[in-house]
Amino acid sequence: MSKSRIINLLRNGQPDQQVTIQGWVRTKRESKKFAFMEVNDGSSLANLQVILEPTLDNYEDKLNKINTGASVEVTGTLAESPGKGQNIELQAQTVTIYGEADPETYPLQKKRHSFEFLRSIGHIRTRTNTLGAVMRVRNACATAVHQFFQQHGFLWVHTPIITTNDCEGAGELFNVTSFDLNNIPQENGEIDYSQDFFGRPAYLTVSGQLEAEAMALTFDRVYTFGPTFRAENSNTSRHLAEFWMIEPEMAFCDLKGDMDWAEAFLKHIFKTVLDQCPEDMEFFNKRIDDSVLATADNIINQDFERLSYTSAIALLEKADKKFEYPVEWGIDLQSEHERYLCEEYFQKPVILTDYPSDIKAFYMRLNDDEKTVGAMDVLAPKIGEIIGGSQREERLDVLEKRIKEAGMEPEQLWWYLDLRRYGTVPHSGFGLGFERLIQFMTGMQNIRDVIPFPRTPDNAEF
Amino acid sequence: MSKSRIINLLRNGQPDQQVTIQGWVRTKRESKKFAFMEVNDGSSLANLQVILEPTLDNYEDKLNKINTGASVEVTGTLAESPGKGQNIELQAQTVTIYGEADPETYPLQKKRHSFEFLRSIGHIRTRTNTLGAVMRVRNACATAVHQFFQQHGFLWVHTPIITTNDCEGAGELFNVTSFDLNNIPQENGEIDYSQDFFGRPAYLTVSGQLEAEAMALTFDRVYTFGPTFRAENSNTSRHLAEFWMIEPEMAFCDLKGDMDWAEAFLKHIFKTVLDQCPEDMEFFNKRIDDSVLATADNIINQDFERLSYTSAIALLEKADKKFEYPVEWGIDLQSEHERYLCEEYFQKPVILTDYPSDIKAFYMRLNDDEKTVGAMDVLAPKIGEIIGGSQREERLDVLEKRIKEAGMEPEQLWWYLDLRRYGTVPHSGFGLGFERLIQFMTGMQNIRDVIPFPRTPDNAEF
Repeated sequence: MSKSRIINLLRNGQPDQQVTIQGWVRTKRESKKFAFMEVNDGSSLANLQVILEPTLDNYEDKLNKINTGASVEVTGTLAESPGKGQNIELQAQTVTIYGEADPETYPLQKKRHSFEFLRSIGHIRTRTNTLGAVMRVRNACATAVHQFFQQHGFLWVHTPIITTNDCEGAGELFNVTSFDLNNIPQENGEIDYSQDFFGRPAYLTVSGQLEAEAMALTFDRVYTFGPTFRAENSNTSRHLAEFWMIEPEMAFCDLKGDMDWAEAFLKHIFKTVLDQCPEDMEFFNKRIDDSVLATADNIINQDFERLSYTSAIALLEKADKKFEYPVEWGIDLQSEHERYLCEEYFQKPVILTDYPSDIKAFYMRLNDDEKTVGAMDVLAPKIGEIIGGSQREERLDVLEKRIKEAGMEPEQLWWYLDLRRYGTVPHSGFGLGFERLIQFMTGMQNIRDVIPFPRTPDNAEF
Repeated sequence: MSKSRIINLLRNGQPDQQVTIQGWVRTKRESKKFAFMEVNDGSSLANLQVILEPTLDNYEDKLNKINTGASVEVTGTLAESPGKGQNIELQAQTVTIYGEADPETYPLQKKRHSFEFLRSIGHIRTRTNTLGAVMRVRNACATAVHQFFQQHGFLWVHTPIITTNDCEGAGELFNVTSFDLNNIPQENGEIDYSQDFFGRPAYLTVSGQLEAEAMALTFDRVYTFGPTFRAENSNTSRHLAEFWMIEPEMAFCDLKGDMDWAEAFLKHIFKTVLDQCPEDMEFFNKRIDDSVLATADNIINQDFERLSYTSAIALLEKADKKFEYPVEWGIDLQSEHERYLCEEYFQKPVILTDYPSDIKAFYMRLNDDEKTVGAMDVLAPKIGEIIGGSQREERLDVLEKRIKEAGMEPEQLWWYLDLRRYGTVPHSGFGLGFERLIQFMTGMQNIRDVIPFPRTPDNAEF
């Protein structure tokens, strides 16, 4: 454990310091008098430049083996770098080559590779600048999520992945079964689920919210952070069949409190990532999307505008702008409407509240007008909807009615209704897709490039 | 957000401080002159005692509604408590009752409930002392896991849940499919997987290790922390069909390094939980298993003994003890053998290394003797095996041979083999089941009681 990580040397290394590094060769350049190699160990975007002098043991042989992708250990002395772009370099005293990489077959060549090609080598693509930066930002972001909630006394709760609730995502659910699919037991012409692992049909979860509500009614503040699933046959740059979701749930919390938490959460996440990964974020701004830093700044420093869906519709109707989808009270807002509000009208993040009940889920709290529910969506410039949440219906009779209206049977949700029978409280929560958050934060165009091994229709390689 | 959490008041509250709390009533006692209620908000094992004087608005009516399980908000003044067992109590000025709980039907009564009964009310059982303490310890432990790895520069990587690798857990895999199970498309008498979501058979993962290895060969140090699955029909107190697993993977790390990380990891986790949840851990020691604190102390303060499997066999053969399963070189050690080594012979945690290759997985590094592999299992007193790990086989030719010997086809693992083709390095990792860790830490007998909503054969309620 006595080696140095390259990020620490680049930030704090001192000339004459004796160090050992381990990593992979990114490039090699030879001159008449000596050679350079750039070594990366995954800790930072930048490589450490290593100077190789001919006095090294087996210099020629080693130089032949030092190719892009090879793994090396170098011990030497740090020195001020005369070159531009780095402060420090490493003068090698000993070099060990652990594993070579044949330049003829190594899939990463010096040229630029398309993200599509890189997806076909998911086991190696993180060795590129962009995918490496994505995964570091992803880790910093995930850590910031835990940090935010733990600081505020939330418990991380692991809600179930396998569920028998089919009420929320009918048609988009993956089945989970231990049946041999070639030989599914039947009884009276129907599948005999009593012989399946769970004794009844089971699915992959689409959300941990209902279970998180149960936990919030004991622990007051909880959050989930785990994988969720959609068997939706959408081959787009914004859809994954498997993605991670974050769902906080707060007891004794109304819609205003919900908005306060969501705003504080987003500000914390963006601020922390900028703080932890400044080089990576600058890289995204320079190479991927030049609005990335401005968007982050906007989220961190602007108070979010809060207004009702009804007021938003009025603004959109008055707008001097032709929308593809016509605006009227009751519609689901389209991306063009959301972008107009954030990017043109308010020019900052916007939280819309109190949507028509017809376009929102059964568990959202019915307002006194009986036409709208206590829902809220957070919209951000360049991003669109990033968070969706609501106050939950805490009144037993209203919830039962809403469940029936949604075409479901209250008996199936007996335990969820129990939460309203025994010690019910006003409570609220929200959810956000972790990969969408990373996508927005980094400016990456395709969601498949912000998760290590994406699962999409016809694709579950690695 | 201006309310106080009860744990903070119990630890730092000062007499005469004006506070508001929100929570659920645990008990109520009435005397002639006034009444007491104990309120819990999930932040701590201990309740806050609240004094209710008849001068309160609607005193009689409120007292009727204050029953076990009801949700309340109380504003009042802290005062030194004359009673035993608490330093501070709350003299109520205003009390709001949000939700009642009918004492006739509320499932939690004052009597002791069996853990088995409590499992049938998984949405409410966390409101008991034991299950509440379990979930707080679980959260503290999960947070300590992230803290340990982040401090040491590991990236949290999200390896896939849905996988098409069936090489590791054949027979114990759950199928994942978007097929209508009543109508699975066939072609030439076989299932037409081209019509399934992923275009081929897919399963729930049993381990993220192979994918974590790919990430370690870019980022040097990574860990997974996510759900894994076994469709094993085991109805025992130690098996779950769905459980969370932690799998760190370190590049440039041999078996000794692996052991160093595993030992440092366990010490950190136990120390942090004792530090964060002292009341909960004392509760477990008092009420559940009186060896819990001694075991934790042993793990934190003893250097782990390290010896080879071969030496362990020699010790067991010499032992003055009759084992149910006879000891000879080549056997898989049984729990009785492991316990003898930890509890009787060494009386501290033990790491066994270099097991016979025949009883270990194909990816473990073959030793020079060609009979053993660089595996290591960490055994702890009262606990048994808590961590399993190994140095991974980094040599392409040896790995190919081992894959074939295990009856698998190297082509299926093309990308895993690529990691040995391009920049391979000595690397190591280990894995541990998170629920087993919590079970051991708390002394809870049944693993179903340390996860919010357990999934086991015939059981996926909630």
